Amino acid sequence: MAGYKVRAAESGDCEEIIRMIQELAEYEKLSDQVKNTAEGLRRDGFEEPSPLFRCLVAEAEDEQKRAEGPRLVGYALSHYIYSTWEGRSLYLEDLYVMPSYRGKGIGSKLLTATAEMCLSLGCARLQLSVLDWNQPAISFYQSRGGRNLSDEEGWRIIRFLPEDLRRMISKNAERDGDPGLL
Amino acid sequence: MAGYKVRAAESGDCEEIIRMIQELAEYEKLSDQVKNTAEGLRRDGFEEPSPLFRCLVAEAEDEQKRAEGPRLVGYALSHYIYSTWEGRSLYLEDLYVMPSYRGKGIGSKLLTATAEMCLSLGCARLQLSVLDWNQPAISFYQSRGGRNLSDEEGWRIIRFLPEDLRRMISKNAERDGDPGLL
Repeated sequence: MAGYKVRAAESGDCEEIIRMIQELAEYEKLSDQVKNTAEGLRRDGFEEPSPLFRCLVAEAEDEQKRAEGPRLVGYALSHYIYSTWEGRSLYLEDLYVMPSYRGKGIGSKLLTATAEMCLSLGCARLQLSVLDWNQPAISFYQSRGGRNLSDEEGWRIIRFLPEDLRRMISKNAERDGDPGLL
Repeated sequence: MAGYKVRAAESGDCEEIIRMIQELAEYEKLSDQVKNTAEGLRRDGFEEPSPLFRCLVAEAEDEQKRAEGPRLVGYALSHYIYSTWEGRSLYLEDLYVMPSYRGKGIGSKLLTATAEMCLSLGCARLQLSVLDWNQPAISFYQSRGGRNLSDEEGWRIIRFLPEDLRRMISKNAERDGDPGLL
């Protein structure tokens, strides 16, 4: 990983981070779902009194590398979650290294730095989700000690979008015969 | 749901909430994993400058019901998550109604109140996990509009425990020949 260092992201990195978020979504074949912007990242991660996430970035160390390619070539974005059983925990939302910079240990360095942050914040665990067809990612995490909870314990993810929530609320109000529920 | 109202939890509710957390873990056959305490809940949810979670509770409305059984008979505990694609979102960590109080619409009322909170906080989605053998829970959420992302998109959950993180960090340091990684 000579030539690339991992450091905490700063507000000025958000343009490059959103570029990589878009690249990762394209790899996951879900790029139409990206609604966020550099401005949104700045507001949520750097201007909120309690930032909604923490981000680490991998940066080219010397001027020559920066002239040849992008300044930032990877990122790891995580946020707190809360386990009712164990308390404060950390969730790794995204870990990404640009394809032409893979195989240099940059992903390992980002994950290890996230692991260190997780422990130093007193978190009970580090958790993340992967797509079942993304075997390189599954192998990457499992070879570093990650436990596949979907296989071991049978967890499945359910999501409600805003339109689902509005539908649920209005159906519940109908059932109660009470349009102003709360 | 006559006789039970849903309201925001208060610091003084934590003893009853931890009792119900323990009951839910027993139902999920994972009760040995509960390390949290009423004191931990108070600190993390009510004394932190940025509380790590939000909790709604279902409470017996009249004195007679409170004399007959517990004051609190259900809870819904959620926390912020962050989607790099869509920004601030809400995660429903636990939704629980005591077995003898089911079938009265209390679970629906807790979920609907969480849905309203989710929208009023400007969250992009409400998300949760269920165990694959817990068909009543899967049906409950799906009948209210929840989408099963593990089936639809193939998401799987990976977890690292602190011992896994320490192992990863020390292995990475060996590989780098650098015991002081950061």
